[in-house]
Amino acid sequence: MKYFEAEPRALPEGIDYGDHIVATYYGVMPRDMIAYYVAPFLAVEQSTGTWTPVPGETPEVRAKHVAKVIGIYEVPQWEFEVPKEVEERTYVIQIAYPYRNIESQIPMMLTAVVGNISMGGKIKLLDIYFPKVYTDGFKGPKFGIEGVYKALGVEGRPLLNNMTKPCTGYPCQVGADLFYEAARGGCDVVKDDELIADMRFNRVEDRVKAYMALEKRVYEETGEHTLYAVNVSDSIPKMFEVAKRAVDAGANCLMVNYLAVGLPALQALAEDPDINVPILAHMDCAGALYESHYSGISSHLVLGKLPRLAGADVVVFPAPYGKAPFLKDRFLACADAMTYPMHGLKPTMPMPSGGITPQMVPTAVADLGPDIMIGSGGGVHAHPMGPAAGARAFRQAIDAAMQGIPLEEYAKDHQELAAAMGIWTGVFQETKA
Amino acid sequence: MKYFEAEPRALPEGIDYGDHIVATYYGVMPRDMIAYYVAPFLAVEQSTGTWTPVPGETPEVRAKHVAKVIGIYEVPQWEFEVPKEVEERTYVIQIAYPYRNIESQIPMMLTAVVGNISMGGKIKLLDIYFPKVYTDGFKGPKFGIEGVYKALGVEGRPLLNNMTKPCTGYPCQVGADLFYEAARGGCDVVKDDELIADMRFNRVEDRVKAYMALEKRVYEETGEHTLYAVNVSDSIPKMFEVAKRAVDAGANCLMVNYLAVGLPALQALAEDPDINVPILAHMDCAGALYESHYSGISSHLVLGKLPRLAGADVVVFPAPYGKAPFLKDRFLACADAMTYPMHGLKPTMPMPSGGITPQMVPTAVADLGPDIMIGSGGGVHAHPMGPAAGARAFRQAIDAAMQGIPLEEYAKDHQELAAAMGIWTGVFQETKA
Repeated sequence: MKYFEAEPRALPEGIDYGDHIVATYYGVMPRDMIAYYVAPFLAVEQSTGTWTPVPGETPEVRAKHVAKVIGIYEVPQWEFEVPKEVEERTYVIQIAYPYRNIESQIPMMLTAVVGNISMGGKIKLLDIYFPKVYTDGFKGPKFGIEGVYKALGVEGRPLLNNMTKPCTGYPCQVGADLFYEAARGGCDVVKDDELIADMRFNRVEDRVKAYMALEKRVYEETGEHTLYAVNVSDSIPKMFEVAKRAVDAGANCLMVNYLAVGLPALQALAEDPDINVPILAHMDCAGALYESHYSGISSHLVLGKLPRLAGADVVVFPAPYGKAPFLKDRFLACADAMTYPMHGLKPTMPMPSGGITPQMVPTAVADLGPDIMIGSGGGVHAHPMGPAAGARAFRQAIDAAMQGIPLEEYAKDHQELAAAMGIWTGVFQETKA
Repeated sequence: MKYFEAEPRALPEGIDYGDHIVATYYGVMPRDMIAYYVAPFLAVEQSTGTWTPVPGETPEVRAKHVAKVIGIYEVPQWEFEVPKEVEERTYVIQIAYPYRNIESQIPMMLTAVVGNISMGGKIKLLDIYFPKVYTDGFKGPKFGIEGVYKALGVEGRPLLNNMTKPCTGYPCQVGADLFYEAARGGCDVVKDDELIADMRFNRVEDRVKAYMALEKRVYEETGEHTLYAVNVSDSIPKMFEVAKRAVDAGANCLMVNYLAVGLPALQALAEDPDINVPILAHMDCAGALYESHYSGISSHLVLGKLPRLAGADVVVFPAPYGKAPFLKDRFLACADAMTYPMHGLKPTMPMPSGGITPQMVPTAVADLGPDIMIGSGGGVHAHPMGPAAGARAFRQAIDAAMQGIPLEEYAKDHQELAAAMGIWTGVFQETKA
């Protein structure tokens, strides 16, 4: 391994952050493996070289294209010397990849920073820093938080999104009835469940036409608009055709299972000038990438930074209060990655979801602030007084949270909230580990 | 949880395998969690229902669309009763999803069988059974093993594929020189490394034109054809445009980083009638999905069954002899998934890769048979007598393996093989765990 020892290393000050993508990894190595040798080996593997020196990997090629190790940080666990019984040591490693190797696209970026490293054993991608030259090649969210609020004519409070339940298997008319109930009850957004898209038993175009006619009716009745996020996830190119037909049929929002179709497909949809409606990105399959302790990609990248880069206006992600085991730290990191400054890309609206009840609304607002979308499926449709009342219960919880009034108090003269609190107290415990 | 106890269960005999997709999971649960309750809950979640009963999930909806648990098998570890100190128990669980919920497309299939389950903690997708009605909606590999052999006019022996090294950072002319050397030495296929695609410093079209001119020259010199697998991985729709331009410029093979672009993008490329050349699918990013013990998707699906379904003619996957930690069991399972009977879809050619040297060829042939493609990058280009000799060493190893002659003996009058064996004996140990 001598060949790789020194050259592809640079101090952080030795690279230009303006033209490097920096990946941060968590690595676990056998006690006697020397990270100072291994890390440069990875950097070479993921840029110009391979396991054995090759003549074409000249100093000129290296100078411009080799990735550089800019940080090797052992997680301190021992003093002076590593105890004999220790089998593995833990590191955080940073590698800087020249932008010119990758350019502004997602597939080659993933290939460089995850690529073959993903098969290398105990190494997990913790973060990616993108330089402006990279993000400048992306349009990012077309609407973002502000645009979603504007599309609805709402501001200053969490939006309420209802996932239609049952998830799938219902005909268009049943969905339309559920849409109407949810919308007139006060859901700002109604979305398809991720388990239904353009199916033979229930077509996207039919749903869009039926639901959008009801959207008008609800607006006349309540003065509130509703976005209908219709799921266009499908094979390529059919997905793009379905999306265009949906927009032509009057859809005011699209939804896509972005990891099932692939991030590049989400980006293509979001950057298409003909798709002039917000896009809601659904998280399914995300756990397959982020759940491993030792491998894969951190959740705030999978659920935050990457879909934002690809142009998601809203991202559904698991709430730690709900049915998925998800640490609150990671929940906060995901929302952060959707909203922090990112070279001028618009912020994506965080949509915590998965077993949410009205009781959890004040906590979600305390955790993430008011500029969020609360996702609820069963919490609306299983309300004992019906889905419109289920929606009202959530809107009452949102009002209470925004006014700083405890739900128990607010429920005294808000019967829908009171009914919800009666049946769903303590159904989920916040995940502790 | 009482609601979910019984109804979404069926004996295996109670479902029609002709119209269900069956997913097999590995699940680890706390000692006192009752799999007979949890498994039906998952089946409901991933089809019609949610965490709380909803009125729209009628018996009619359930009858046609609910997924059914058809097997709950605890891995036997104790007799009579579970010891008190045991904290977790392990299960294999099978769930059958109605085809009508999914139809013949990859995204909705992944959403159903991986989807939100992926975020559910210790549950890993071990296998997917596809009914014929599902695979009938896919074209599968256009060429398959037979078509790839035919394109080269070769049969009955492993093909040799050289990954151009350095991986990236070289201008077109340098790549062309390396192509020429590798091809005239006897590489049947030369592929771009996954780290280069259509880059500003080296364009796909330029490479195709330059390499294909040399392909002709090599054919005149040696009588052997060479496929050049040019990497078209890119954003969508650019990837499809680059692919078409490559084919128009004379490309005889394409390559795609199929997990970085997404399986649906691979499928779209493979099923495009204008793309009338074999497609080589590169494995990078695969480990992020398969490496976890507890979560994600088994490697034979990620590297075998799924890319085959999406139409890959060749799939690059890690050899247990090389640089990635990969168990031989899984290696064999991947190759199996590429080639076993699958409702008439053509078999995909397995391409073991990653630190392969000529010494490993007989083992690879013993493991997988002769209908494989041997991938070697550094093993060709770092040969002490140059890349053409590096290619010859591999071809000699292939000849020896096919004739059943030990390499040490064959090397006696084959100097390139002898030279390779001199430097690369025992560089990697087969991964044991």
